[in-house]
Amino acid sequence: MDKETYENSELYKLRHTASHLLAMAAIEFDPKVKLAIGPPIENGFYYDFEFSKPFSEEDLSALEKSMQKLVERNISVEHLTVKREEAIAKAKKAHQVYKQELMGNLEDKELSFFRIDNFDDLCKGPHAKSTGEVKALKLLSVAGAYWRGDEKNAMLTRIYGTAFGGQKELEKYLEMLEDAKKRDHRKLGKDLGIFTILPAIGSGLPVWLQKGATLYRLLEEYVRNVELEAGFQHVITSELGKKELYETSGHLDHYADSMYPPIKLDNETFYLRPMNCPHHISIYADGLHSYKQLPIRIAEFGEVFRYEKSGELSGLQRVRAFTTNDAHIFCREDQIKDEFKGVIQMIIQVYKKLGLKDYWFRLSLHDPKNKKKYSSNLEMWEKAENAIRQALKEMKIDYVEAVDEAAFYGPKIDVQMKNVLGREETVSTDQLDFYLPERFGLEYIDEQGKKARPVMIHRAILGSMERFIGHYLEQTAGEFPFWLSPIQVRIIPVSDKVAEYAHEVLNEMKKSGLRAEIDESNETLGKRIRAAELEKIPYVLVVGEKEAGNRTVTVRTRQTADQPTLGLEDFLKNLPKG
Amino acid sequence: MDKETYENSELYKLRHTASHLLAMAAIEFDPKVKLAIGPPIENGFYYDFEFSKPFSEEDLSALEKSMQKLVERNISVEHLTVKREEAIAKAKKAHQVYKQELMGNLEDKELSFFRIDNFDDLCKGPHAKSTGEVKALKLLSVAGAYWRGDEKNAMLTRIYGTAFGGQKELEKYLEMLEDAKKRDHRKLGKDLGIFTILPAIGSGLPVWLQKGATLYRLLEEYVRNVELEAGFQHVITSELGKKELYETSGHLDHYADSMYPPIKLDNETFYLRPMNCPHHISIYADGLHSYKQLPIRIAEFGEVFRYEKSGELSGLQRVRAFTTNDAHIFCREDQIKDEFKGVIQMIIQVYKKLGLKDYWFRLSLHDPKNKKKYSSNLEMWEKAENAIRQALKEMKIDYVEAVDEAAFYGPKIDVQMKNVLGREETVSTDQLDFYLPERFGLEYIDEQGKKARPVMIHRAILGSMERFIGHYLEQTAGEFPFWLSPIQVRIIPVSDKVAEYAHEVLNEMKKSGLRAEIDESNETLGKRIRAAELEKIPYVLVVGEKEAGNRTVTVRTRQTADQPTLGLEDFLKNLPKG
Repeated sequence: MDKETYENSELYKLRHTASHLLAMAAIEFDPKVKLAIGPPIENGFYYDFEFSKPFSEEDLSALEKSMQKLVERNISVEHLTVKREEAIAKAKKAHQVYKQELMGNLEDKELSFFRIDNFDDLCKGPHAKSTGEVKALKLLSVAGAYWRGDEKNAMLTRIYGTAFGGQKELEKYLEMLEDAKKRDHRKLGKDLGIFTILPAIGSGLPVWLQKGATLYRLLEEYVRNVELEAGFQHVITSELGKKELYETSGHLDHYADSMYPPIKLDNETFYLRPMNCPHHISIYADGLHSYKQLPIRIAEFGEVFRYEKSGELSGLQRVRAFTTNDAHIFCREDQIKDEFKGVIQMIIQVYKKLGLKDYWFRLSLHDPKNKKKYSSNLEMWEKAENAIRQALKEMKIDYVEAVDEAAFYGPKIDVQMKNVLGREETVSTDQLDFYLPERFGLEYIDEQGKKARPVMIHRAILGSMERFIGHYLEQTAGEFPFWLSPIQVRIIPVSDKVAEYAHEVLNEMKKSGLRAEIDESNETLGKRIRAAELEKIPYVLVVGEKEAGNRTVTVRTRQTADQPTLGLEDFLKNLPKG
Repeated sequence: MDKETYENSELYKLRHTASHLLAMAAIEFDPKVKLAIGPPIENGFYYDFEFSKPFSEEDLSALEKSMQKLVERNISVEHLTVKREEAIAKAKKAHQVYKQELMGNLEDKELSFFRIDNFDDLCKGPHAKSTGEVKALKLLSVAGAYWRGDEKNAMLTRIYGTAFGGQKELEKYLEMLEDAKKRDHRKLGKDLGIFTILPAIGSGLPVWLQKGATLYRLLEEYVRNVELEAGFQHVITSELGKKELYETSGHLDHYADSMYPPIKLDNETFYLRPMNCPHHISIYADGLHSYKQLPIRIAEFGEVFRYEKSGELSGLQRVRAFTTNDAHIFCREDQIKDEFKGVIQMIIQVYKKLGLKDYWFRLSLHDPKNKKKYSSNLEMWEKAENAIRQALKEMKIDYVEAVDEAAFYGPKIDVQMKNVLGREETVSTDQLDFYLPERFGLEYIDEQGKKARPVMIHRAILGSMERFIGHYLEQTAGEFPFWLSPIQVRIIPVSDKVAEYAHEVLNEMKKSGLRAEIDESNETLGKRIRAAELEKIPYVLVVGEKEAGNRTVTVRTRQTADQPTLGLEDFLKNLPKG
């Protein structure tokens, strides 16, 4: 459900109530505990505490039991208001410094409280009517969190939990969590040797290990070939750009907080680029273009740099530098529809090849009522939106429209997927832009020989390589399609006696262009097979004396329990084609 | 000839004398001219002047004529010494401020001068005996140069010239210059659409255009495949690294001047890396390694950043960021010989594929007498040098030895070539390193289960992509081998009538995996053929009505004047294989 629906739901209310129960349980556990805040969140709730004695994950079950008892008593939840000064005095007396600070920052004369049993908590609600509505609850984890999110403040203990209106829903959610944990790209990335973060190099700067670099390269090669076929030209540009470039683009005005600090070289100032557009625009602007030459489609796997705080970094999802599968299309207004169709076509083609299925298109439009945000030419907006809508319709694409979700510089199409936690994510973007061509004064010569202004489309199919691979690891649980597997075939000789034959098999595989390797370690056969399974290698070829004698291999795959013994040629012939 | 031989040669002396003749000619042209310095240089000489009236390239021939006359007079060149104070007073009186400053900085009581006719110039020599020895001379160009190379000083006019002991040598040299001008990678890079420098982005930051990016990618793919076959593992690491990383590596101690300024992110300090080694070492250091697992060969096309002053930037030769074809081999001492053999083998293989022929191997050794530079374990030096020498010998490689040319951290092999100006350049490097494994405390577990220290080899086959492609453009004059040509086939339809057939041909080419395109512009056939020639496209297929009728193509190549008409299949069958 969307944010608004959720915040008006019974689920939201009972989770809010559950957070108050958690506070009550915490007080029972540690009467001197200081309470901070405890809101419902997307998949549950949390509460921040300053405990007067050590608290650890093991204490969660005790708290959960206390909460259970409060649920069983089915206590009614009552709303009340208290005079501000009175409430502050009471908090002060109880040494509830965080509550006191919260109240001090409020301007109302009367403060809103919710009461459960003898526990009153500063709160705007809404809440369940009684504690019995919290039919199923679970405390999940403990984390550190700075008071008010500011690292200069005290570090509090945050307890996360979830609650549902029924036991079944809770169990389903916990199963999903369990599955998500197994699919966590940080865990899989490590287990499969895809990437690592090395403290010596720095956080937020992932290191792609051999298998990850292979995966990265295969993806890049594949998408680049799709782009070349679709008439994109690839370029390679510098990650640095002159200050003036980002002044013209407006990045320094609107985006400086996300940019790295300036770099002075000799007598000029440079920036590590936050986006590739100014570079591609500079290439377009360097030539004269006739209407016949448009569209010009410039593509690059371009690295960009994003200022992120250490605390916000996470695996491949939030990093300090990443490579975007970027392209910029410079075209005439009358080409917008066809260019969007072309990009949509590529998205469908790439997703199919990658085996991605549960995605949907979202068309983000301007809001004619929001004159402040969409100040520029409204006729242009209508025309452009109609062209994009028409592209979707002609291609018979299901899509949702989102009014007022457009950026101020143009409408766009996003491709949405749910991640393993059920959260919606944007994977691909196709964004029209009236604004940058204007700022850079881009031109082409029209049919009448006059100067005209092109429009621009920012387009990313895989988004960034880092985020995409993170997402893809979780979607596939690391079981990549055959063509994309860093190791496609692993050969396991049963004993040293067949080492020679095993190497012959290896050579045959390599000659056929397969990424194959041999496991000659001293481990037992079973352990070696298990290792290959854990590494999600598509084909494991076991060779013993029988196989060596008949020049065959016994094939184990991820998909079936069958273990056919095949001649080498038969095995090669039956492999998936791309 | 090498530097020392040159500086003791007659050629060097007569060029020095020619520079004095240039000064005399300048005085004749502009009696108020102020003289700065005028040394012989690698391929000629120059003199820096401050003219009192405008000076341009057109004035060179007048100066050259004056110089000729002085040569014809065969004036003897005399050495004399003058008291310092006396010389300074004379320079001051003549308003020769630069000479005055030069003399002021000398500490000798008697200053050395050379006299030609009535012109005395402060100079240590050596010189020709008489002006008649300058048998052939030519003034070449005019450039601006700051006094003492410091941009805070006055900008002087530098006149370049060359001189030889005979007219034939001069002509040969001028021919080479003419050829080098045509082969200048900056000119070719622009003409062939390989790269450009865009002022909007910044100098020293080349932009690879479509064809250049294709060339770059093909080269990278080819070398990476060679590396993968040779057992290298490819990784992708960040261009940023923590300050501490470069403290450990010693870069901040010894190399800070060439590094970009520090970048503060949150509460840590990062640098754009000057080299990839610390990153690859961090990957090695992250695991435990047994002697059986060595060598571990980590490769990356890794971008590095080099602080360069604006005035020193040039095309692809001196840039501010470049991508090295880098690898680091971590091995045991007893593996040094084989690892060097492996790298030499790869170099030979790659050069052959690229059609590079005139190169030679140089083995740079320590000097046992230079105890200060090569302070560490001398026995280790001997052993390592012998291993490398043995590798070269076993492979029957011709090589030169260069004593005292090693870096302080280990011996190396360089692969040398001459550039189009006849200047020696290093293309590939294979460098042993005892030092970094020590600084990073790298380890492996030896056969006895004890900790041992690996050695490291830094290895670059193409050097950096930027410098290599610059060099390669000049070596090949842009005529790349077929497999490396950004456009392999261009189809030229004689008229609109055969457009359909021309597109059929195009599709056939593309189906065969060729990089092909069609030229349907309105230009004449002749102009279109000429354009394809200038773009150095290996195959031009002309199709007219006859070809369309017979389903053939008329083939023009760069190599021969023949223009056979072939069936499509025959054409495809006869193309070079890789």
